[in-house]
Amino acid sequence: MKCIILPEKFDYDGSQISSLWAYNSFGVNEDSIIVFRGACDVKIEHMIDLEDRRENESIWSEDMVSFIIEHFDSTDLKLVYARQRFFTALVREHLAGLGIHTTRGGDDLFLKEKKLTVSIASTSAVSQKIHFGINVSHEVYGNLREAGIGDDEGIVRFMQEIGEAYVKEFEDIEKDLRKSRPLGVV
Amino acid sequence: MKCIILPEKFDYDGSQISSLWAYNSFGVNEDSIIVFRGACDVKIEHMIDLEDRRENESIWSEDMVSFIIEHFDSTDLKLVYARQRFFTALVREHLAGLGIHTTRGGDDLFLKEKKLTVSIASTSAVSQKIHFGINVSHEVYGNLREAGIGDDEGIVRFMQEIGEAYVKEFEDIEKDLRKSRPLGVV
Amino acid sequence: MKCIILPEKFDYDGSQISSLWAYNSFGVNEDSIIVFRGACDVKIEHMIDLEDRRENESIWSEDMVSFIIEHFDSTDLKLVYARQRFFTALVREHLAGLGIHTTRGGDDLFLKEKKLTVSIASTSAVSQKIHFGINVSHEVYGNLREAGIGDDEGIVRFMQEIGEAYVKEFEDIEKDLRKSRPLGVV
Amino acid sequence: MKCIILPEKFDYDGSQISSLWAYNSFGVNEDSIIVFRGACDVKIEHMIDLEDRRENESIWSEDMVSFIIEHFDSTDLKLVYARQRFFTALVREHLAGLGIHTTRGGDDLFLKEKKLTVSIASTSAVSQKIHFGINVSHEVYGNLREAGIGDDEGIVRFMQEIGEAYVKEFEDIEKDLRKSRPLGVV
Amino acid sequence: MKCIILPEKFDYDGSQISSLWAYNSFGVNEDSIIVFRGACDVKIEHMIDLEDRRENESIWSEDMVSFIIEHFDSTDLKLVYARQRFFTALVREHLAGLGIHTTRGGDDLFLKEKKLTVSIASTSAVSQKIHFGINVSHEVYGNLREAGIGDDEGIVRFMQEIGEAYVKEFEDIEKDLRKSRPLGVV
Amino acid sequence: MKCIILPEKFDYDGSQISSLWAYNSFGVNEDSIIVFRGACDVKIEHMIDLEDRRENESIWSEDMVSFIIEHFDSTDLKLVYARQRFFTALVREHLAGLGIHTTRGGDDLFLKEKKLTVSIASTSAVSQKIHFGINVSHEVYGNLREAGIGDDEGIVRFMQEIGEAYVKEFEDIEKDLRKSRPLGVV
Repeated sequence: MKCIILPEKFDYDGSQISSLWAYNSFGVNEDSIIVFRGACDVKIEHMIDLEDRRENESIWSEDMVSFIIEHFDSTDLKLVYARQRFFTALVREHLAGLGIHTTRGGDDLFLKEKKLTVSIASTSAVSQKIHFGINVSHEVYGNLREAGIGDDEGIVRFMQEIGEAYVKEFEDIEKDLRKSRPLGVV
Repeated sequence: MKCIILPEKFDYDGSQISSLWAYNSFGVNEDSIIVFRGACDVKIEHMIDLEDRRENESIWSEDMVSFIIEHFDSTDLKLVYARQRFFTALVREHLAGLGIHTTRGGDDLFLKEKKLTVSIASTSAVSQKIHFGINVSHEVYGNLREAGIGDDEGIVRFMQEIGEAYVKEFEDIEKDLRKSRPLGVV
Repeated sequence: MKCIILPEKFDYDGSQISSLWAYNSFGVNEDSIIVFRGACDVKIEHMIDLEDRRENESIWSEDMVSFIIEHFDSTDLKLVYARQRFFTALVREHLAGLGIHTTRGGDDLFLKEKKLTVSIASTSAVSQKIHFGINVSHEVYGNLREAGIGDDEGIVRFMQEIGEAYVKEFEDIEKDLRKSRPLGVV
Repeated sequence: MKCIILPEKFDYDGSQISSLWAYNSFGVNEDSIIVFRGACDVKIEHMIDLEDRRENESIWSEDMVSFIIEHFDSTDLKLVYARQRFFTALVREHLAGLGIHTTRGGDDLFLKEKKLTVSIASTSAVSQKIHFGINVSHEVYGNLREAGIGDDEGIVRFMQEIGEAYVKEFEDIEKDLRKSRPLGVV
Repeated sequence: MKCIILPEKFDYDGSQISSLWAYNSFGVNEDSIIVFRGACDVKIEHMIDLEDRRENESIWSEDMVSFIIEHFDSTDLKLVYARQRFFTALVREHLAGLGIHTTRGGDDLFLKEKKLTVSIASTSAVSQKIHFGINVSHEVYGNLREAGIGDDEGIVRFMQEIGEAYVKEFEDIEKDLRKSRPLGVV
Repeated sequence: MKCIILPEKFDYDGSQISSLWAYNSFGVNEDSIIVFRGACDVKIEHMIDLEDRRENESIWSEDMVSFIIEHFDSTDLKLVYARQRFFTALVREHLAGLGIHTTRGGDDLFLKEKKLTVSIASTSAVSQKIHFGINVSHEVYGNLREAGIGDDEGIVRFMQEIGEAYVKEFEDIEKDLRKSRPLGVV
């Protein structure tokens, strides 16, 4: 599994959640986590969560760090949702390690009761994907700047450390499941 | 999904990881998390993790809280391992909420660098299961008593809150995945 | 699993077979069976059965009771077809209970050799769905009126009883499969 | 899929539910339904339904027709349970066609409120199986003799017609699912 | 599984890789391999391999034999790719049997270091498909004419023999997997 | 995926086909192909192919090269059988490259009409495995010595080249399936 941190500013408009975006954009033919920073403005046709559509929610941020995860090992909806939930907990752990206390509600993180993150997961016939975005700055919602991670260097380190941590967890899980016997039965 | 907290002391000898143990013992025919407290001494024939067998490890504790999770919705090894990893993070979150700082390494939690927990996950042809155990007291390893959760009442509350939190997360995930559109494709 | 009986007349144009229609229309984020009554006129772009398309068949009824079933627990085509076949038998059983004798040929029911029902099943990347429609009145085909269920009250009872019966069967199956040991092997 | 009617009396002791029994006994390397008639006395170690074990139920009949279905196309527990439920409805339809009115409760048929049938379904790592048994005669439970199918010839016809009907349904479903477009999405 | 050799010239424009093409065109509701000969010119919107799209590759041949395989038994991407790889080896075996030595690199065959074939595999929500094409004549690439199979009769025999060989292999595999016990465990 | 060539003589008694043998013996927690050379004498309890059991076949060779493949990415029987068939073709290709002409019948290779190889594939609840064995010398059956690969060095090279070729094919397939769009639909 590959982690790529885009060196330049890159805006998220929702099209990046499409299957094969990583291959098409960067030639990656492995499972991957692509991390980038830029504005976020999700077009209605790319909204995967119908709740957002129904409530005509805007998914908007002037400056956001985005993690785009793609796995091709299964198209099981339950699996990608378990992975999304775990990724959320992983980000929270990392923030706690930086001394930033957040609360988690499902796949959302909150900073002082203000929503800090957006996330969605789904599948196509060929892959499963997760988008997880964290506001770097935002006028209304929680954001990393307010949490004290404001300088560009800190943000880059944050992007790298989480991207690499997820790859490590994934590879570790793959190893763990290759040494367990099947269950006995009562 | 059902959460059952056993009211009496109950020892873990590893046979509880078998598929259908919850049905056989308590008549539960739902997905379930059974929580109990007692001594832990896993017999070699119930060791699921071959690493433990190879290294002739003893899985022993004089007093442990055990969570036994069983899902029948899939026998996918990847799914139960993602769930196990998420459950580990959930326990850590809960401990942090109680002011107890731990570190996580894969599916293990550590208290002041001493291993606090044991865990295993696997599947049979009919279900997937997770065992997650936390020492209440232990002469060598990390334990809840040392962490300041020593009284019986505190332990019972801990058992209940985590058991119920997992059920809530599971049901929340099941709802989330029922409102997401399939991915588009580049 | 949730059963919803729409209180108002609702026409079926085939778009209701789309994945997530129940969530989008009624906010249901469970597996569901939505039951309604109205005219039926399936547009060519919503025809799922290519046989109908090839033969330029019209799927039309002036007054039809429609059952729309959606499951998110799997996207296995074999499973949704087994469920569709079972649902057909369930409707037939119910009609027999009302003293109405029909014959079954695959997923079709016939009343005095006239086709009484239409049905289709398929999957997307996120869910599996079944449409099952029964003519209330029809100039050519078999219909409930002819079978003696003509009054509105009788139709509503019919809609409710079958909708609820399917939910009950589904939940009963889910319980049954949580108490069976894996097979031995010769 | 192959249907075999055993010409000689054959007793059911529960071992026939094991995976690969059909291959091992008759060299059948297709999906199959094997139908036979004989005494039924299920040994405790072959009881798949833990409810029977827990309640120390005896599964016994002096004369029973047994259907043993095996599919290798999937090891999905949900699928074999949907098939079992459908098979139960199929038998009921057939009995109704012979003028014998039964009621169905899950995977059980009742004749004048007396249990007429036994059934179980499960999977191993390689196949899924169903056993469905109908009493020909029984001192306590419902039975075909009481229902008026008493002569050997009638029983043989009954065995053949249901065995062949299931094969026909299975092959028909396999054809149906090969002409349906994937679902659209709202 | 059915093998159909189209008797008339038929051009491949890439739309034939779509799911259900065989049913829609020929009414085949089985797994199938459809074999035909004609020009090949794949339109950009039918290109499944994004590498071809990215590199703006033309998939063109004045005269090509095409094999279109469709299976509905699974939508597992790993399975269709294993089948594609095996089909490639099967064609190579057959060519070797005709005295034509080729080399294989993944899913490509080469004749004297010139690419002889094109191939792609993928899935939709309902089926899995493979296209495998071999140049009959080509100005740049390897082709059967150059290999000495030039006459129409020889080409027809080639189409038939490979089409039928794949059906035979498929049916043979289906039989083989119906006589193997599950694995033991260390 | 890892390839390990055992440096010492190692006998095959059938227990090596068990799931997790590679982890238990060599600590490999990846998908793997383990290659070794030694006598072959499969005990009846390790016979996976019931045809061999039924016919009381002896699987015996005084000197055999064995390939033991284990994948944990799926427990789909169809997938491991497709992989087995492909592996057989791969070995045949390799032998042809050494100037040794064999014929293939299913998963068997023949040298001058004498059976050269044995093979079996199956799954447990946690992994899928293939055993493929080639006689180095044999009094009755085809063998590599007769084919002209007699010296120890040649055998070692043969073991290495095929082991590594399979790893390369597997990794290549994994890459290929990560750049293909889902199929369109007619």
